[in-house]
Amino acid sequence: MPRVITLGEIMLRLAPQGYNRFVQATSLEATYGGAEANVAVSLANYGIASSFITKLPKHQIGDAALNELRRYGVDVQHIVRGGDRLGIYYLEKGASQRPSLVIYDRAGSSMQKAEVEDFDWAQIFQDADWFHFTGISPALGDNVAAICMEACREAKKRGITVSCDLNYRKKLWTKEKAARVMGELAQYVDICIANEEDANDIFGISSEHSDVVGGQLNYKAYQKVAAQLSEQCGFKKVAITLRSSISASDNKWAALLYTGQQSYFSKEYKIHIVDRVGGGDSFSAGLIFGELMDYAPQQTIEFAVAASCLKHSIEGDLNHVSADEVRKLMDGDGSGRVSR
Amino acid sequence: MPRVITLGEIMLRLAPQGYNRFVQATSLEATYGGAEANVAVSLANYGIASSFITKLPKHQIGDAALNELRRYGVDVQHIVRGGDRLGIYYLEKGASQRPSLVIYDRAGSSMQKAEVEDFDWAQIFQDADWFHFTGISPALGDNVAAICMEACREAKKRGITVSCDLNYRKKLWTKEKAARVMGELAQYVDICIANEEDANDIFGISSEHSDVVGGQLNYKAYQKVAAQLSEQCGFKKVAITLRSSISASDNKWAALLYTGQQSYFSKEYKIHIVDRVGGGDSFSAGLIFGELMDYAPQQTIEFAVAASCLKHSIEGDLNHVSADEVRKLMDGDGSGRVSR
Amino acid sequence: MPRVITLGEIMLRLAPQGYNRFVQATSLEATYGGAEANVAVSLANYGIASSFITKLPKHQIGDAALNELRRYGVDVQHIVRGGDRLGIYYLEKGASQRPSLVIYDRAGSSMQKAEVEDFDWAQIFQDADWFHFTGISPALGDNVAAICMEACREAKKRGITVSCDLNYRKKLWTKEKAARVMGELAQYVDICIANEEDANDIFGISSEHSDVVGGQLNYKAYQKVAAQLSEQCGFKKVAITLRSSISASDNKWAALLYTGQQSYFSKEYKIHIVDRVGGGDSFSAGLIFGELMDYAPQQTIEFAVAASCLKHSIEGDLNHVSADEVRKLMDGDGSGRVSR
Amino acid sequence: MPRVITLGEIMLRLAPQGYNRFVQATSLEATYGGAEANVAVSLANYGIASSFITKLPKHQIGDAALNELRRYGVDVQHIVRGGDRLGIYYLEKGASQRPSLVIYDRAGSSMQKAEVEDFDWAQIFQDADWFHFTGISPALGDNVAAICMEACREAKKRGITVSCDLNYRKKLWTKEKAARVMGELAQYVDICIANEEDANDIFGISSEHSDVVGGQLNYKAYQKVAAQLSEQCGFKKVAITLRSSISASDNKWAALLYTGQQSYFSKEYKIHIVDRVGGGDSFSAGLIFGELMDYAPQQTIEFAVAASCLKHSIEGDLNHVSADEVRKLMDGDGSGRVSR
Amino acid sequence: MPRVITLGEIMLRLAPQGYNRFVQATSLEATYGGAEANVAVSLANYGIASSFITKLPKHQIGDAALNELRRYGVDVQHIVRGGDRLGIYYLEKGASQRPSLVIYDRAGSSMQKAEVEDFDWAQIFQDADWFHFTGISPALGDNVAAICMEACREAKKRGITVSCDLNYRKKLWTKEKAARVMGELAQYVDICIANEEDANDIFGISSEHSDVVGGQLNYKAYQKVAAQLSEQCGFKKVAITLRSSISASDNKWAALLYTGQQSYFSKEYKIHIVDRVGGGDSFSAGLIFGELMDYAPQQTIEFAVAASCLKHSIEGDLNHVSADEVRKLMDGDGSGRVSR
Amino acid sequence: MPRVITLGEIMLRLAPQGYNRFVQATSLEATYGGAEANVAVSLANYGIASSFITKLPKHQIGDAALNELRRYGVDVQHIVRGGDRLGIYYLEKGASQRPSLVIYDRAGSSMQKAEVEDFDWAQIFQDADWFHFTGISPALGDNVAAICMEACREAKKRGITVSCDLNYRKKLWTKEKAARVMGELAQYVDICIANEEDANDIFGISSEHSDVVGGQLNYKAYQKVAAQLSEQCGFKKVAITLRSSISASDNKWAALLYTGQQSYFSKEYKIHIVDRVGGGDSFSAGLIFGELMDYAPQQTIEFAVAASCLKHSIEGDLNHVSADEVRKLMDGDGSGRVSR
Repeated sequence: MPRVITLGEIMLRLAPQGYNRFVQATSLEATYGGAEANVAVSLANYGIASSFITKLPKHQIGDAALNELRRYGVDVQHIVRGGDRLGIYYLEKGASQRPSLVIYDRAGSSMQKAEVEDFDWAQIFQDADWFHFTGISPALGDNVAAICMEACREAKKRGITVSCDLNYRKKLWTKEKAARVMGELAQYVDICIANEEDANDIFGISSEHSDVVGGQLNYKAYQKVAAQLSEQCGFKKVAITLRSSISASDNKWAALLYTGQQSYFSKEYKIHIVDRVGGGDSFSAGLIFGELMDYAPQQTIEFAVAASCLKHSIEGDLNHVSADEVRKLMDGDGSGRVSR
Repeated sequence: MPRVITLGEIMLRLAPQGYNRFVQATSLEATYGGAEANVAVSLANYGIASSFITKLPKHQIGDAALNELRRYGVDVQHIVRGGDRLGIYYLEKGASQRPSLVIYDRAGSSMQKAEVEDFDWAQIFQDADWFHFTGISPALGDNVAAICMEACREAKKRGITVSCDLNYRKKLWTKEKAARVMGELAQYVDICIANEEDANDIFGISSEHSDVVGGQLNYKAYQKVAAQLSEQCGFKKVAITLRSSISASDNKWAALLYTGQQSYFSKEYKIHIVDRVGGGDSFSAGLIFGELMDYAPQQTIEFAVAASCLKHSIEGDLNHVSADEVRKLMDGDGSGRVSR
Repeated sequence: MPRVITLGEIMLRLAPQGYNRFVQATSLEATYGGAEANVAVSLANYGIASSFITKLPKHQIGDAALNELRRYGVDVQHIVRGGDRLGIYYLEKGASQRPSLVIYDRAGSSMQKAEVEDFDWAQIFQDADWFHFTGISPALGDNVAAICMEACREAKKRGITVSCDLNYRKKLWTKEKAARVMGELAQYVDICIANEEDANDIFGISSEHSDVVGGQLNYKAYQKVAAQLSEQCGFKKVAITLRSSISASDNKWAALLYTGQQSYFSKEYKIHIVDRVGGGDSFSAGLIFGELMDYAPQQTIEFAVAASCLKHSIEGDLNHVSADEVRKLMDGDGSGRVSR
Repeated sequence: MPRVITLGEIMLRLAPQGYNRFVQATSLEATYGGAEANVAVSLANYGIASSFITKLPKHQIGDAALNELRRYGVDVQHIVRGGDRLGIYYLEKGASQRPSLVIYDRAGSSMQKAEVEDFDWAQIFQDADWFHFTGISPALGDNVAAICMEACREAKKRGITVSCDLNYRKKLWTKEKAARVMGELAQYVDICIANEEDANDIFGISSEHSDVVGGQLNYKAYQKVAAQLSEQCGFKKVAITLRSSISASDNKWAALLYTGQQSYFSKEYKIHIVDRVGGGDSFSAGLIFGELMDYAPQQTIEFAVAASCLKHSIEGDLNHVSADEVRKLMDGDGSGRVSR
Repeated sequence: MPRVITLGEIMLRLAPQGYNRFVQATSLEATYGGAEANVAVSLANYGIASSFITKLPKHQIGDAALNELRRYGVDVQHIVRGGDRLGIYYLEKGASQRPSLVIYDRAGSSMQKAEVEDFDWAQIFQDADWFHFTGISPALGDNVAAICMEACREAKKRGITVSCDLNYRKKLWTKEKAARVMGELAQYVDICIANEEDANDIFGISSEHSDVVGGQLNYKAYQKVAAQLSEQCGFKKVAITLRSSISASDNKWAALLYTGQQSYFSKEYKIHIVDRVGGGDSFSAGLIFGELMDYAPQQTIEFAVAASCLKHSIEGDLNHVSADEVRKLMDGDGSGRVSR
Repeated sequence: MPRVITLGEIMLRLAPQGYNRFVQATSLEATYGGAEANVAVSLANYGIASSFITKLPKHQIGDAALNELRRYGVDVQHIVRGGDRLGIYYLEKGASQRPSLVIYDRAGSSMQKAEVEDFDWAQIFQDADWFHFTGISPALGDNVAAICMEACREAKKRGITVSCDLNYRKKLWTKEKAARVMGELAQYVDICIANEEDANDIFGISSEHSDVVGGQLNYKAYQKVAAQLSEQCGFKKVAITLRSSISASDNKWAALLYTGQQSYFSKEYKIHIVDRVGGGDSFSAGLIFGELMDYAPQQTIEFAVAASCLKHSIEGDLNHVSADEVRKLMDGDGSGRVSR
């Protein structure tokens, strides 16, 4: 099986039960997730040799985060232990017209304070086929941006394919800084993944006639966004997820894959949402899997969108689905009939 | 900040978890609510100096009810302690074609047995700007009706605005008695609030061409209901909520505000329901807030409807939303996208 | 009240909480159910003298299963105790495009190992009016098929009406074996119940122009299926449930009753699903109740479909609704408004 | 099997989870119990034909109480349905030096408002061998005292043995009234059961040199109490439970049975408490069982004490133990080793 | 009622359910506490006008912490809002030989980053009678030590009594720094509270012949410790708690109060532990209450120890007991008999 | 780190919450365990390269069991997938005089049906230092006994140390068969582990003057049992655990290690029990760890007993403690004071 290296942060996710608001909660569901860790788990679920790279505190809360990755088959042997704390994010699940709410409490985490010398890329990249990271890591600080840069350089040196999910987070950095740092990293990236807003937020490439707040996307216009991204940054391929938010309970979900020559649009799914956090990450993992399996572009984008469609029906950040389950949906059975 | 006095009952609400029926329950979620207490908490959430007036037993179950109000910022210093029991209502949450079920066990509660002399209105109404009550209180018994009457008279004497939510409860009194008692109280009421059935149940003013059971409301006809209510009872303003029940899981929700000259209709929301109990109360609080803030009528009704739309996405009787959250929805962002 | 005897298996149902997948679960909701036990409980809820016949192990897990039946008013005096284990089924609830998943762990259960001599039909059938079983029992093994055969013969001998829900389970036997065994049992059956696939799976009678996976059913074509079933097997009446699966969260639901002369189609319900397991069983119980009450065919099929519509809003296998609640929906009130 | 009739009230018991205090609770464990219902369930667990007589409201909360009795094998066919509400008691579990706290909310319950004509004793007492009631019932009101009197008279008329647990409740009536009413009922009672305080509270018969608050009981002195009770009221046998409270977590527990000739003292158990509510009731049931089985006095008192010792290790009011489990402890195996 | 000002930090406390270890937890009980907040809540429970001073972040997690204080009657009007995060502590409850485990994650909290100018002591100390703080606050950083110093000076200026619980935390600062800073603050402190190790850790005053790890304390020797503390630092009174740890499940608990002339030893309690966190804080609150009520020294120390004995039977940091409950135990009723 | 291979079965453990009895449970805690899997997890917690050998069904319940082992660091690469079901055991936790109850439902599990050819010992034993199994495996059937024999032979061939925990289970086989099969396997075993009853049950070697049911053990007599076992079966070392059951809540716990020359007795612990299942397995793991670390005999037995003492304070089968935690207790700190 191919070997994929993912670099990033895993956080403790604290969420009130059901649809309770933060001020109502007397207990919090404690799971673990983070954009890149989510990708790593998805890939392990598909049978890929998936290794996650991060830094975790030495205490039992750090152990618990590591255990969660290990539980789902992720290789944790290269995780560095040290530093002071595990980053946290509080999640309040939205419903109907009430949006989900995320409060980050990640400052000062072991990963945010990690240094370039914490990671031995020569050892990490042994036998590796793919390297994945997201725009959240460089946004954590110059030290983490430097780690990403080092990892990218080392990956390129070894001919490893590099993918990046732009994942712009406005609370972590400004658009200007994001443009500068991501622009530099972009030169090492083969495959770029973005959502319906990232390209505009980071690179100022906007889609015409789309109203993200109003839930109306102009699919065709995103073709141009993809092409422009590819040209401007030199990405070989660009994938864009297209989420039309009807409400916190119901979304439409599709994506396109631009290969330099052509755009491939997926089927669109109408989703009744269980938990939409990690939707984009599950898409990235599906896309990486399609590429690693040498699927045709249309097949790859259908797999990635079907995988992430299923994620919306699963509690927590992690996409607990097998490749077989994704293919069943991709092949047309979305009727949800009981499987006995 | 303005000061609002709300008079009424707070009960222990006992509900099976999730969608369990009463006969399946082995534990009950214990929260607290009641039409008027729900209004008081909403107003406190908007930053209003909100004081709740009731009578609670001296034991720890009474303490717990009082604590819940205090927790959410309601002024509880005028709550009288004494009597035998806290009223209870059992709630079974409906879904799809199965309706929610309410079983009242409130007879003999401290509030139901309260006497006119329990409350010192001179002290309570100090610095007050608004007095709110509902049609449930006078329905509890002649003693409670007398308390309402006394409070209304004292409020009027001090130039305090009086609002009343008609809230007809057929299990508490007959239409005839309701008409007589509410008719008398109406003379003190400035602003009347009603749902799509109350005007008909109490005052025999019906809307043409509406089928409440079938979920089909003739919005325009309610304009006439409002005008008629206003004329017949001398209300300065009349607000009517318009709920079209598609099922226990999905409702349409809107309202109108009649100001004597004109009717202002709100936007209509299509809601996927988490908990619809307290929907009308959150509307009342929104309306009072709009009036206290001197919003224009259209703005007031939009605020009130957006506030109560959000309530439907929140567990329990109480509407845990801030004025900012209401304004965000009112200004058009109902797409439920994650707020990070 | 009429007395109905139902023969079959009751299992421990183990389900992760909410929408958790099996691999996420750290606790399992433990309820009890099984196609035939579900029918028995529904009938007891309607006030029928409902007796359930099975074999349960003597230990406390067996006690708990028996207690659950007794709790809901089923007569358990003829349940045989002995054998090694209670059958189990694991249920993972689906959502949106993700289907529900059932893993059976029923091999070796006390009922599966039961013998013809375990049951004394002369005693069991005293004062009985109706006998019901399903196609799952004969599929458990030749010994259980023999028990069904014996019960059918004994019922017929006493002029007791016999109903059978075909309930084909592909993991328990082949279509060929099912055809042979069910064909033999069919001679004793007065009323046959089937879903949109059973007739085809067992007797090769297929509906034209229907796409079960795609969620598109050709209602009219099922009229022919019913007529053919009736002719081929000699059933006096045939009822077919018609489920159009939009997703694991939303289904359309209807049914037809063929009386030999004519087909009666029910109203179609659009259901937002809480738990769809036991949906067919609640239909069977509704149908048996309609027949026992001597309802007209249209009334019977409306009762059965309304009953099973409500089941989809209830957690667990068992349909906790009264005949009054069913009649209220059947008479048109499906708006789900709060019943206070 | 002998048939025992128990008359009394069953209530909804609402208890915070674990050791939470009332003011901390956000959910309440909902079980059902009451002194007499607890006896009825224990007897059913021993295989006795146990019938419970009470009045329950017709709504679903009443259904749930009835279902709980039926679940554990109690015959509920003579339970009368009607009236307004199910009585409630709130229970906060104590620990170490903090006592358990009970808040009664039972006024106005269906049973408290029941009338003599609600019960047809001729039908109820058919084939009955034993009638049991407690001092709580006559304390509920003159109407319920009259029901008890009628039941006692009817029982006596038929030669049915009558047992009564004195169970003095100071919040329900005064010592004077208790003395008068219980004195009258006593003439029908064959076997009297009391705890270490009842005889003193009701009949003014006190034990020398015992300090109940301090947890020091003078066992021998209770022999005199029993003899005096027997003489004064004409009881054939008197049983007294002897609880030495070390703390809310640890108790010593023993009892004596006085047969007119002699006192039989049981072994004393040192108990680490899970839930002590219902401890006395489980003793009554054990005593009745011993008498019905014609056990020797020493055997009877050992059975009753072993049974109630086990109750203290079980959550809820009800003693879920079999006669075999009681006999195992009675025969000396209290080491708590795992039974595989 | 007297008015008490308490300065300190309130944290989110995250604890696995029951006796689960951190690595087993999938949900965490979310309550709030901290040495000083615990004192504030206890005092409010005794009817004292208790005001808590801290800085909390503006987001909903900060709201929830504030609400918890308000819920239990603490005056929160002087709490400053701002900064980045709420401090957290993870708590794993021990049992038998396994100790409880605390992992602090409080660095960077709003309170830890608070500045002297955040607090307006002139306004805060209006009508105040008492000021309480603990050694944890100055350990948080020089800025917080400066806030404590400012508060102490302002309190002294107004003749307000000052109490301080030494509360040495070895993970926050060294013994040397603690000695220097606490030594300086000590000049403003009237009443000093310490546990069996604090005096030694901070001021090097050790008790002879005590073995804290082995659970053997030499009570009499602590008399000298108290006298020495008083002399060395100029405290008017010194109170020392004396915990003999038998295991994580069982402790002995007592204390002494030294008044300059004499030492008053309390009764010793043998406690079966529910939750021992906050034990010392509940002692401080009891002591302050005794002083405010002008109890005699023996009465004061008995109240403080009885109060904190009860705390060990209550879940969470906060001591939910009334003064009446404390007095009942202090007066000798520790038998834990059910209070009906 | 040394590498240890453990062969055996892992089961789904289903336990009612808290102290609920089976008949009260509506949800079951789902964890995983089994005598040998418990040893494997303990060793992984100590940092040993621990590999578990078993056969698990391919479905998601099998996945979940495998994930649990992986989560806690056990090497699962040699686990064979196939067969029909995961074995189950139901556990009801006892308290005070009520014993814990285990109901096995393991017949027909994948492991019980495994064949000799399922396992490739040459591959499994690569780089292995130790092989551990228990008497439960050969009791599962002749096929599993044959697997054990093969494994033992292959281990011996490679000079791998072999340990065996006798673990007699009377429901799985007779004493006669156990004696025969275990006698044969014994020739390959270097280190034998037994509890206070095993030696007698299997080899008829009994301890004088001990009363296991009464909770009185004659420690010295077990020295002879160990010596006799060693002589009779040729074990190099024999370890015997000594449990004195006071009740289901309190036990005394100690052990001895016989090395051929001498017996080493451990300290005795008085334990307040959280969960005693897996106590013996955690002892085995501690013993193996001590041997692998070349601890002196006294140190080894103290480590093993301290480790298993801690297990009794942890929920579930698995002993979630580190070697450091064990050493801390072993070195004398059992006071359970909070570790901050």
